[in-house]
Amino acid sequence: MIFREFYNYILQTDYKVNEELPFPVNSASFGKGGVLTKYNEIEKKVYFIQSGIVELKIKGYQTEKIIDFFFENEMFCALTSFLTQTPSDVQITAITNCELDMVLYDDLILAYESSLEANKFARIITEQGYIRKAKREKEFLVETAEERYAKMFATHKNYISEIPVNKIAKYLGIHPESLSRIRKKLTS
Amino acid sequence: MIFREFYNYILQTDYKVNEELPFPVNSASFGKGGVLTKYNEIEKKVYFIQSGIVELKIKGYQTEKIIDFFFENEMFCALTSFLTQTPSDVQITAITNCELDMVLYDDLILAYESSLEANKFARIITEQGYIRKAKREKEFLVETAEERYAKMFATHKNYISEIPVNKIAKYLGIHPESLSRIRKKLTS
Repeated sequence: MIFREFYNYILQTDYKVNEELPFPVNSASFGKGGVLTKYNEIEKKVYFIQSGIVELKIKGYQTEKIIDFFFENEMFCALTSFLTQTPSDVQITAITNCELDMVLYDDLILAYESSLEANKFARIITEQGYIRKAKREKEFLVETAEERYAKMFATHKNYISEIPVNKIAKYLGIHPESLSRIRKKLTS
Repeated sequence: MIFREFYNYILQTDYKVNEELPFPVNSASFGKGGVLTKYNEIEKKVYFIQSGIVELKIKGYQTEKIIDFFFENEMFCALTSFLTQTPSDVQITAITNCELDMVLYDDLILAYESSLEANKFARIITEQGYIRKAKREKEFLVETAEERYAKMFATHKNYISEIPVNKIAKYLGIHPESLSRIRKKLTS
């Protein structure tokens, strides 16, 4: 899917390829390992993934922690930094090759002034971002690592083999060896 | 502050008392201990606090956990339930007497269809909700309970004395005795 299709899907509209959206959309490519947003950088872009996987890391109490993975047909950015235009406390890295669409902060802010549609789209995307965060908070409070892995596996069956095991363990907040035990149990 | 003033503040508008907003606003009162949203109820209202404090609880792995407190001049609801119209996994309780303004789900959805302003307002409020959740996630990952208490104390100095100590401990995810030690240390 490209961003325009995603936009049509979210708003139930039908923009054709040559019609202008309320804000310009550009494309970008990142190779595996490429850093999209650095720690302390102010986020100026929001991305849509045509293909690939990215990870969001945060500097934890003692180690770095992975707080999210984003996959095909999802939007991402260092959202707190984007919304507040303050330095990012997360770092975003492509963990596979990525084909992306992107929208610039300044273009979006301009569209917000007069476009009902731009506000509606951003409201819905932000709602989804909120739901995602709340879900993850709940999972940490009420589910075991095994349940969380099983859920992640169920939702992203096609992609999960592309993420190194140590990254999945870092995301679940467990030791890689504990994850190996969980994986064996689930696949047996 | 009443909701209309908050609305003007967020959108930098100047609605007078007798002017209609893009959606109707009603008022509500809850006594201390009153339950505003029950577990498994579908959230149909979003609230603004004129005065009072509410808590949001979730059923944790073994015990109930408090995931948030909301204070004067803040908006709240069981937001995931509100956005998805599915049963709430949080319960909201007034922990002091509360004077509230409220907006109904159906009225808001109707306003979203044609009102740029309603979409803009909801986008900004949802952005703030996202930032709040992301901040709490970060705090849990990178800060000690002592740092989190000190921050909560700094932000809500005037209100914190109204929240029972065991509730604050439940929010910080620590034992009430650990909290007593932290409090003694900070006030000494």
